[in-house]
Amino acid sequence: MAAVEEDVLEINEAFYRAFNQKDVQAMDRIWSCSDEISCIHPGWNVLRGRDAVLDSWHGILTNAGQPRIVTGGAIATFTGDTAVVICRELVSGSALVATNVFVRENGEWRLLHHQSGPVASMV
Amino acid sequence: MAAVEEDVLEINEAFYRAFNQKDVQAMDRIWSCSDEISCIHPGWNVLRGRDAVLDSWHGILTNAGQPRIVTGGAIATFTGDTAVVICRELVSGSALVATNVFVRENGEWRLLHHQSGPVASMV
Repeated sequence: MAAVEEDVLEINEAFYRAFNQKDVQAMDRIWSCSDEISCIHPGWNVLRGRDAVLDSWHGILTNAGQPRIVTGGAIATFTGDTAVVICRELVSGSALVATNVFVRENGEWRLLHHQSGPVASMV
Repeated sequence: MAAVEEDVLEINEAFYRAFNQKDVQAMDRIWSCSDEISCIHPGWNVLRGRDAVLDSWHGILTNAGQPRIVTGGAIATFTGDTAVVICRELVSGSALVATNVFVRENGEWRLLHHQSGPVASMV
């Protein structure tokens, strides 16, 4: 696996690790500094901008009842300093699939956009 | 609106126009030549590669019972020659939201990745 692919898959894993560890600061760092970040949680409306997106994550990560997420099957596609990662998510028995778009900022990959939605079954 | 943004929103509209006009050839042209294209229809598993993705669209576009799609609220975010477009979709009264990732190939924007999933209500 190319080093750049390892880097992107590592930050993708770090995103889900922040989720499971309920680590608000790590989650903040994983997202791009751009105010054009966007996030579509399953069944939610579109959130755009750092305040809206990070507020939503703060709410999720401070919710004691939030179940853990299990992920797998991550695949990265690159277009220059942008990477589109697709991966499976499993939350409380619900099978989802996510699109995570990362951009390279000052040499570090950061999350620009996340969408998660249901799939019929595990891919 | 910047010319580049107009170009991307136009190809995004062309994608949905091909859908509504059941235009298989136009749909083929809108997708990137890369075999790394990917598509997540609502409730489907991940499709990757031109054969899998375009076969799925051929099936949808040749389905006489396929309802029209109404779209709106498209927003584009750029990272070099990559654009992430988020837009609303309404199909048979179901509110969805899509992530459409376009890349510039030989000066033309082409679709690299599409994910559509349900939202709670119109955004």
